[in-house]
Amino acid sequence: MPASGSRRRVAVATLEHPQSPSCCPHFHRAVELVGKRWTGAILYVLIESGRPMRFSEIGHAVPDLSDRLLSERMKELEASGIVERHVTATSPIKVEYELTERGNELSPALGELKRWADRWLN
Amino acid sequence: MPASGSRRRVAVATLEHPQSPSCCPHFHRAVELVGKRWTGAILYVLIESGRPMRFSEIGHAVPDLSDRLLSERMKELEASGIVERHVTATSPIKVEYELTERGNELSPALGELKRWADRWLN
Repeated sequence: MPASGSRRRVAVATLEHPQSPSCCPHFHRAVELVGKRWTGAILYVLIESGRPMRFSEIGHAVPDLSDRLLSERMKELEASGIVERHVTATSPIKVEYELTERGNELSPALGELKRWADRWLN
Repeated sequence: MPASGSRRRVAVATLEHPQSPSCCPHFHRAVELVGKRWTGAILYVLIESGRPMRFSEIGHAVPDLSDRLLSERMKELEASGIVERHVTATSPIKVEYELTERGNELSPALGELKRWADRWLN
């Protein structure tokens, strides 16, 4: 829907790299990774917990997410080096997921997004 | 692929709301919004520029994004109150997109994600 004909403010800066042939390939990959359906919520739960979590715990903390999809996402996060899967050979076998350093360092970005969401999507 | 049998560290905290029936609905919506294919890159370009941008400028700054999809994304961002569309009745007509306050306040989250991407996806 068209807005009014006037602009509210004038330009305050120019693009940092106006001649750049490509916008932010690393950033773009990061958004695609974290922004994939359910991945953000899974990472949020792992960061909030601050400890390794079992598959069923993660599933419990992220409702509406099927076990099949959670399993798929955990494999993707492991392949991206964001979580590590630890298997303890007890009976029954114990499988836990833990954030790597790379995964833990997503905390500031997800924390800021949480603050924005609490302010603007309330 | 299974990792080693031992865990590297013990639990350091418990979930803030272990009994919560639902993980972070606002946060989840925010991730779905920002994480939608191309949306993050479009927001990055608008935040970096710090000024209203024309449709073609945004398209130029985000390569591989078709005009059709860019148009769809700009409509979604407008509907979410993240950008405003300004039409100036010149000839030819001038259409620009500007971040709202809600949109500008995504800057810290996207900035932190950019820092993470530069460090870990290099």
